[in-house]
Amino acid sequence: MASAKDKAAARKRFEDVYTAVRDQLLSQFEEHGMPGEAIEYYRRSMDYNVPGGKLNRGLSVVDSVAIFKGRELNEEEYTKAAVLGWAVEFLQAYFLVSDDMMDSSITRRGQPCWYRVEGVGLIAINDSLLLEGAIYQMVRKHFKGEAYYVDLLDLFHEVSYKTEMGQLVDLITAPEDKVDLSKFSLERHKLIVIYKTAIYSFYLPVALAMLVCGFPVEKASPTAPDYYKLALDVLVPLGEYFQIQDDYLDYAGTPEQIGKIGTDILDNKCSWCINTALALATPEQRAVLDANYGRKDADAERKVKEIFKAVDVDGHYQEYEESAYQRINALIEKVPEVQNAAGDAVLRRDVFRKFVEKIYKRTK
Amino acid sequence: MASAKDKAAARKRFEDVYTAVRDQLLSQFEEHGMPGEAIEYYRRSMDYNVPGGKLNRGLSVVDSVAIFKGRELNEEEYTKAAVLGWAVEFLQAYFLVSDDMMDSSITRRGQPCWYRVEGVGLIAINDSLLLEGAIYQMVRKHFKGEAYYVDLLDLFHEVSYKTEMGQLVDLITAPEDKVDLSKFSLERHKLIVIYKTAIYSFYLPVALAMLVCGFPVEKASPTAPDYYKLALDVLVPLGEYFQIQDDYLDYAGTPEQIGKIGTDILDNKCSWCINTALALATPEQRAVLDANYGRKDADAERKVKEIFKAVDVDGHYQEYEESAYQRINALIEKVPEVQNAAGDAVLRRDVFRKFVEKIYKRTK
Repeated sequence: MASAKDKAAARKRFEDVYTAVRDQLLSQFEEHGMPGEAIEYYRRSMDYNVPGGKLNRGLSVVDSVAIFKGRELNEEEYTKAAVLGWAVEFLQAYFLVSDDMMDSSITRRGQPCWYRVEGVGLIAINDSLLLEGAIYQMVRKHFKGEAYYVDLLDLFHEVSYKTEMGQLVDLITAPEDKVDLSKFSLERHKLIVIYKTAIYSFYLPVALAMLVCGFPVEKASPTAPDYYKLALDVLVPLGEYFQIQDDYLDYAGTPEQIGKIGTDILDNKCSWCINTALALATPEQRAVLDANYGRKDADAERKVKEIFKAVDVDGHYQEYEESAYQRINALIEKVPEVQNAAGDAVLRRDVFRKFVEKIYKRTK
Repeated sequence: MASAKDKAAARKRFEDVYTAVRDQLLSQFEEHGMPGEAIEYYRRSMDYNVPGGKLNRGLSVVDSVAIFKGRELNEEEYTKAAVLGWAVEFLQAYFLVSDDMMDSSITRRGQPCWYRVEGVGLIAINDSLLLEGAIYQMVRKHFKGEAYYVDLLDLFHEVSYKTEMGQLVDLITAPEDKVDLSKFSLERHKLIVIYKTAIYSFYLPVALAMLVCGFPVEKASPTAPDYYKLALDVLVPLGEYFQIQDDYLDYAGTPEQIGKIGTDILDNKCSWCINTALALATPEQRAVLDANYGRKDADAERKVKEIFKAVDVDGHYQEYEESAYQRINALIEKVPEVQNAAGDAVLRRDVFRKFVEKIYKRTK
C-alpha cells in the first residue's frame, strides 16, 4: 500500500499536469483573440469545477498504464497518461456542472454548485459545454498523429453518449418534482447506474489506459481476445457496486463520514435503498413510502427511514456487498493476463484489484 | 434558379434522410435496453428540435457536394452528404436548445422553446447534450472506415468549441439582466458573430462537403493551396454579413417579414444596430441609450429606436450591405478553381455564389 506521503506526491505530480493543460487551453483562447474577461472567466470555471474532487478517475488512468506496462513511466509517458486522466476529470466536471443544474442541487464538494456562484447562473450551461469541448482540444494537442487517436475520440463519444442516455432515464424515472414510485425498480436502478455512472467512472479510465498501451480495438483474429469486452465485463459490475455503496452511504453514512448530509430521500432519487425497500415492502409499508418519499419534509423523511429499518435495508446491503465482492473477485480471476501484440504491455488483473481495494467496505 | 416545386422535392428528399437517421438513433437506444418511455421522449425531443427550421445549413452540404463534383449525386453519395447535412442540423438544434435556456427565450420557430414544453424543463440541458452526442453516432455509423473519418470528427470538435467560445463572449458581454453598454463595440460584435454564428453556419457545411469530396486537410506541398483556408476566408465574412442582416431585420423588419416580433433592444442583445448607434451617438444620445437599452419596457424601447433613427442606423445598414456585397463577391472571384488530387472535384466559386444569392437583400 502506498504511504500517505507517496499518495500526496502522486497527486501533486498529477495536479501539475492540470495546470499545464489549463494554461494551454487559455493560451488557445488568447490566440483566438478572446477578450481578457472571457479568458479570466474560463480559467475560473475550470479551476472551480475540474480539479477539486478526489481525482480517483483521473489518477486511475495513470496507475493503470503503469500496471499494464509493468514498470514506472518515463516523463513523456506519464504526461500522456495524465492528460487522459484529466480528460476524464473534465468529462466528470462537464457532467457535474450540468447535473447539478438539472437536479437543482445546492452544494458540491463542500462549495456552492457552479451555477449558484455570483455572475454565473445559466451561463453554466455553456460552461459545461466548454468543459466537454476542452477534452477534444487536449486530446488533439497531445495525441493527434498516434495510431489510436481516432479510437480515443470514438471512446469518449461512446462513453459520453451512454452517460447521457443514463441521465435521461434517471431524469424521467425520478423527476425531482413528481414522485411516482411505480416507475422505480431494482432493474431500472441497475440500468441507470450502469449507463449514468459505471461506464464513464470505471470503464473509461481503464479503456483509455489500454489504448495508450497499444491494446487493439479490433480483434486481430476471430479467436483473439476482445480486450475491451474483458475489461468492460469486470468494470461495469464494479461501477454498479460503487454506486450502490454511494446510495447506501447517502442513507446510512454520517455527515462526518460522507462530508455532506444525504438528501436522496427528500430529492426523490432512484436510489438502491428505496428500490430495495420497494421490493421488500408489505402493501401497508408501500403506502407509507408512496406518501412520504421525495417530499421536502423532515417528518416524511423519518417515516421513510423507519420503513428502511423495518424491511432491513441495512442487512440486505451487507449481504449485497459481500456477494458483490465475491462475484467481482471471481470475475477478475477469470481475466486472462494476455500480452498485447507489441509485447510491451499485459492485461494485468492488478488493475482491477486496485479498484476493488479502493472501494471495498469504504465508508466515505 | 430552382422552381418552388424543385425546392419542395429537394426538401422532401432531404427530410427522408432525417427520418432514417432518427430511426437509427432510436433503434440504438432499444438495443441498449432503454425503456420505452425514454425512447419515446428522445424521439419527441429530436422531432421537436431538429427538422423544423429552414434547413439552409443542412441542405447546403448536399448542394455543395453536387457543385464540387459537377454532377448529380448517386444514391449513396446523396445519403452520405445528407447525413452530414443533418449532423449540422443536429448541431444547430443542440445550440438552440441550450441558448434558448440561457437567454430565457419564449418561442422558437413559432412554438414554445423546448425547455418550456410540459414535462421537459431542465431536462432540456441533457436533451441538448444528446443532440450533440447524436452527431458522433451518425457520423460513426456512416463514415467510420473513410479516410477522412477522423477529419470529420476534428472538424465538428473545432467548430463546436469555437461556437461555445463565441457564446461565452456573448453571454458575458450582454447578460440579459445587467446592461452595461461600455462592454459593447463593433469590434466585440464582430468577434461574437464570427465565433458564435459564422463558423458553424457557413464554414462548417462547406468544409464538410469538401471533406466528402476528398479535399485534403494537410497541404500536399508548401506551395499547394490550403483549400480550407480559402473557404474560411470567404465564408466568415459571408456569415458576418448574414448575422448583421439578422440583427438589422430584428430591428427594422415587420413581424410579417421575419415571422416574430424583434426583441433585441428589450433583451440587451449585442446587436449590430446598437453597436452602430453607439459608434455614432452624441453624448446626449448615448445617455438615452444607456438609460433605455435592455429594459423590459415598451417606452424605453421606443426611445432607443428614436436614437437609431436619429443616427441613421438604416442608412448605415444600406451602406454596409452594399459594401459587404461587393467585398464578398471580390473575395469569391479570387478563389482559385483548383481540382483535388483525385481529380474528381473542383473548388467551385458557385458554392459561395449560391450562399450570396440566397442572402443578398433578404427581408426574412
